[in-house]
Formats: sequence, structure tokens, C-alpha cells
Amino acid sequence: MNVAVLGYGNVGSSLCEALEASNEIGLKWILRRPGRCTTMQMTDDIETILKDPEVDAVCDVLPGVHPSYEYMKAALEAGKAVVTANKAALCCGFKELTALAKAKKLPLLYEASCGGTIPCVAEAVNLAKSNEITKVFGIMNGTTNFILDKMDREGADFGTVLAEAQRLGYAEADPTADLSGFDVKNKVVILSNTAYGSSLTTDFPVCGIEKLTKKILDGFKAEGKMLKLIGISVKKAERYAIGVVPMVFPAEALEAHVPANYNLFTLEGTNCGAVKLYGQGAGGVPTADAVMRDLMTIKKGEASAKTAAFEKELIYDPSLLYGKGYADGTVTEGTLEDLCAMAKEKDVFLAFEPAEEAK
Amino acid sequence: MNVAVLGYGNVGSSLCEALEASNEIGLKWILRRPGRCTTMQMTDDIETILKDPEVDAVCDVLPGVHPSYEYMKAALEAGKAVVTANKAALCCGFKELTALAKAKKLPLLYEASCGGTIPCVAEAVNLAKSNEITKVFGIMNGTTNFILDKMDREGADFGTVLAEAQRLGYAEADPTADLSGFDVKNKVVILSNTAYGSSLTTDFPVCGIEKLTKKILDGFKAEGKMLKLIGISVKKAERYAIGVVPMVFPAEALEAHVPANYNLFTLEGTNCGAVKLYGQGAGGVPTADAVMRDLMTIKKGEASAKTAAFEKELIYDPSLLYGKGYADGTVTEGTLEDLCAMAKEKDVFLAFEPAEEAK
Repeated sequence: MNVAVLGYGNVGSSLCEALEASNEIGLKWILRRPGRCTTMQMTDDIETILKDPEVDAVCDVLPGVHPSYEYMKAALEAGKAVVTANKAALCCGFKELTALAKAKKLPLLYEASCGGTIPCVAEAVNLAKSNEITKVFGIMNGTTNFILDKMDREGADFGTVLAEAQRLGYAEADPTADLSGFDVKNKVVILSNTAYGSSLTTDFPVCGIEKLTKKILDGFKAEGKMLKLIGISVKKAERYAIGVVPMVFPAEALEAHVPANYNLFTLEGTNCGAVKLYGQGAGGVPTADAVMRDLMTIKKGEASAKTAAFEKELIYDPSLLYGKGYADGTVTEGTLEDLCAMAKEKDVFLAFEPAEEAK
Repeated sequence: MNVAVLGYGNVGSSLCEALEASNEIGLKWILRRPGRCTTMQMTDDIETILKDPEVDAVCDVLPGVHPSYEYMKAALEAGKAVVTANKAALCCGFKELTALAKAKKLPLLYEASCGGTIPCVAEAVNLAKSNEITKVFGIMNGTTNFILDKMDREGADFGTVLAEAQRLGYAEADPTADLSGFDVKNKVVILSNTAYGSSLTTDFPVCGIEKLTKKILDGFKAEGKMLKLIGISVKKAERYAIGVVPMVFPAEALEAHVPANYNLFTLEGTNCGAVKLYGQGAGGVPTADAVMRDLMTIKKGEASAKTAAFEKELIYDPSLLYGKGYADGTVTEGTLEDLCAMAKEKDVFLAFEPAEEAK
């Protein structure tokens, strides 16, 4: 089996190294930007890859929606399997890309797009074999967990820890996508779609941690509580709700003890109860490892089983996610959607605590 | 697809309920002891099941090595797929049963035999696609975790908590298999075999928590440490070590926060780093759920991929597991094997803390 890798950043270069070391899968092409091609294996022309009959699968490790979405679509249309680590492009084009893959009877695998090396997509597919999955939630962003963990352990303030995260490479120079919850948004959609066999809305409440202060965190800490930025969705029969928000956890919750830049995903099923998956949710080598696993799945001929249909029609019902909202020194009860809108209007930090019945 | 269920205890009756509710898999027979058959579906004769051409798979949810091992062997020889939840029989007969399944080109799946509903077997297979797995460890027994957690949280003594665990059904009337580490022994062998693609020795150090006292636990707690009964194996090139022992964790470790009767398994790979899986490691419904997932895997035709060969020859080298042994008020450095032998000779409680390099 031969593959082409689209992109040569942190994940792309780790993936190329893993492929060079592999006896199972050959690396045929690396797509780079014009002017960056330094070896015979590199090309800046996607058509070279699409037209090469020796390329069996295309690995998309580019950032951003475009041209990644168009490349994945073109690769499937050219009869090539697709493995993607690109959460933004997959989240936006989920319905179209999975339908195209199904029509073409080609694998479209995306473990690396959600939670780096953590096998949460594999387990959403696996647990759904014998469960109705009714809840997906977790710590899905390493940058914000690093910041929250460090603020908690060291009593440092937001700005200091953010600067350290940037220095260590855990946060981007422009950290907006992580801090605003936008990165988590893509992941919770992809994982929920997989778990529920549907294509959920991408228009839902997203609150981040930009407005967090040491004082707010210390206030919760004094009550034995911890804050974590959480992606969450719940499903009840044919209805669902979904959101991203800093959530309040009791000190004894496993979530409260996830250190540094690690992630912790939870899948809840009718028979299995809560299953939690912990590991490295980002980084070149761990993310490339998830791509390699997907490629091995294709090579072993197991991919058809993992290419599901996402055709279940579910109804978005924000009332399924309700509880207490802590914002601006006050506590309000309401749906996450209303609480999030209120916090955004006031331009303040929101922390959410689901009601007992909504848990 | 039609199945026969061998055994009708806690897991067996949950499994039969799940099968009755399933549109995908039919329940043809339930094997019970003579005198216990109360419906037409029940039989006390294994031959009836083995000779029935409509039975595609046999689900072994019996306890103990015999006659479970003989039944699994006979089922494979009769051309039937086998799914087992029986860790004792599988651990003892691992090499023979997996070789027979391979020779017969039949699935032998065993998710439920290790960690109840937790998909640790699936993930050992999955992560091994792109990783050399170098370590397997974790909290693999709910009964002892319930006791240790309760002693820690409530400051109760061993006997009181054990009695409560028995009252709640978390511990057997005869709790020896759980307390002695014997239950964990079976699980760490099965999971390590799967992770390393080998059939490891079953003759290795096993220390339990029978001799634990409140005073010992409080001593570690005063130093900010927590005890958990751990199954562990490490692999280094072609050598490995394996054991079961109460291990010392710092308060900030995720292991220290696993509550009640939950389990937490860790698989460490060369590329993925540490991946941890948390959930219900026992109980009728969760364990039956793992059996149902294996059956669905067979039904979907994905089982061949999961029926691996376990033919790698590895050398048992106890020197790979060494560190500090806390026993009888003293601290001794040594291999886990030597420390365990010493504690058994003195008839005292042993707590093990792996050396930095061995971690």
C-alpha cells in the first residue's frame, strides 16, 4: 500500500518519519507549498497525487478548512482512501465527505482528527455495536488543560501561564482557537457524530476560557471544585444537545486530576456505562500514530467496518443541557444555550454545572 | 447468527437478556447444570450444542478452568466461534486455545475476560498496529479498589470495609481470589499476551492485600501516597517481567483517584505514550456488553483481524521490575520477585514502588 501525505508541518513530518520506518506502508508523495519542495518525493501539485495510480490512500494533515476539504473530496472521487487529522475540514464537511466515501465504497478514517492518539473514534464505533451511546464529553484540548492545571497547582495567573504555554509550544502564538473553545467544538462534533451515527449541527453554544482570572478559579477551589474546558453532547431518544463550556467538577472527579496537556474523553452507553479514555490529545508523534493506525486498518482490510453511515436524523433540543451558570459573581439557572448567550452579551467568564437530572 | 451461552450466572443471565433483545443475534441454547433447566431453550448436555449446526458461536460465561477449557476446545473443534468471559480458563489455556482457533480459522474473542466492559483487549490489538507496546498495567480488580478507596476516604479498617463490600455484592463470600491478587493475575496475563503477541509465563510474583491494615495505609497517606492493587508487565526488546502487587502512587496520579469498584488500565506504546482506559471492570450488564460487542464483531466479519497469532517467543527476566519494597516497617530494594518472596516468607503486607528507571 502506498500513500501520499498532504502537509509537512508537525504532524506531517512525524507521519513521514513513521512511514519511512514502516515495512507495511510506502510513502509515495508529500504535498508541500510551492517553493518548499526539496526532495524528489515532494510536489506542490495535488493533481500529481490524484492521478498517480500507485497512490492508494491520501493522508490529510493540513490545517484549516480549505483547501483540505476540496482535496479530500477530490481524493475520494479519484478512488483513493482518505485518512485525515484535519478536524476543521472534517467537522465542516462531515455529512458530504462521509456520504461520498460511502457512495464510493472507500474508507474515510479520522482517528487523528479528534484527541490525537487517543482511540476515542475507534471506541465510539466499537461501543456503539452493543450500546446506544447517550453522552459524549471530556477534556478535549491540551492547551487549555495545561493552563487550568498550572493555574490550579501553582496559583499562577492566566497571563503568566499562557505565556509559559506559548514558550513550551503547548499554545500557538495566536491562541484564539484553543482558548475560545473553537478547537473543542470541532472535536465534540466529530466524536458525537460518530457515537450517534448522525451529522449534528455545528451551530451551538461555545464558551471559552479567555475571560478566566485567578480570582474566579480560586473561588471555585475554595469550594473544593475544579474547572475544565469541556466539550459535551447528550442524546435522549431522537433529540440531542451539544456545547462547549468551562465546567465545574468536584475535586474527586477523575477530570479534576488530568494533568498538563493530557485529554480525557468519556463515552456513556446504555450497557457499558461511562468509559473514559486518557492520553496525549495532540503533538506530532502521537497524532501521526493515530494516522498510522488508520492506515494499518485500511491495509488489513478492516476499514469497511469502520466507515459507517451517519444518516440518523436527530433533533437539536438545547433544553437537554441545563444547569447552573456561574458568571460575573452571580448564579443563574438555565439551558447552556441561554447561559452562554448571556455571558457573551455581558462579555464575562461563564462556568457551567449541569443539573443532577442532566448529568 | 445463532449462539449458545454456557452458564447462567450473573453475566450469563444478563447476556441472555441482551440476546433476547437483539435483532442481530439469536439465542439458541443455554447450558445449565443438570436439574436447573427450566425452559426448552436450556440444556445440560454440551453435545446438544456442539452438534447443533445452527449454532455459529459459543459464549463461555462459566467460572473456573474446568470444564470451561474443554468446552471451548470442543467448540472450536466443532467449527464454532468462541467468545469467552472466563479469565481463569483462558489464562491457563491461552497458548493452546489461540493456536487451535488460528488453525481452525475461527474467531476466539475475549474482551469480557479482562476488565469487564472496558475495551482494553480491543485497544491492545488496535494500538499494537502502530506501536511496540512496552508496558501494561493498571487497577484490574474492582473489589480491592472498592476496599482501598473506602479505607482511604472514610478511614475505615480493612475488616469493616470488606464486610461492607460483601454485603453490597462487590466481594464474594470467599474473597480469596480478589484479595490475593489471583483475579488480577489472570487479567494481566491475558492483556499482556494480547499486547505483546506472545504467551507469557503464568508463574510469576503475585502479592495481594490480605495483610493490609489501616495503619499501613495511613502511613502512606501521611506521605501523600496512595496504594492500589496493580497488575503490571513490562517488555524490553525480547525480555519481559510481570507481576501483581499493591503499588505506591503519588496523590496526583490518576490511579489514586479511581473510585469505588472502577478499573483503570494503562497501555504504553512507543508512539502513543500512555493510553488509559477507565470503566466498569465487572458486573453482569457491563460484562455481558463486552460479550455482545465481540459477537457483533464476529457478525460484522471483522473478527479475523482480531484473532492474532501469539507466537512471539519472549524471555522472562524478573530484573526488569525492580524498586522499593515496603514491608514490615522496613524498606528494601530489589526485584519484585525477590521482594514478593521475602514478604510471603515473613507473611507480611508488601507495597511496591518501581524505581524511576523501571517506570
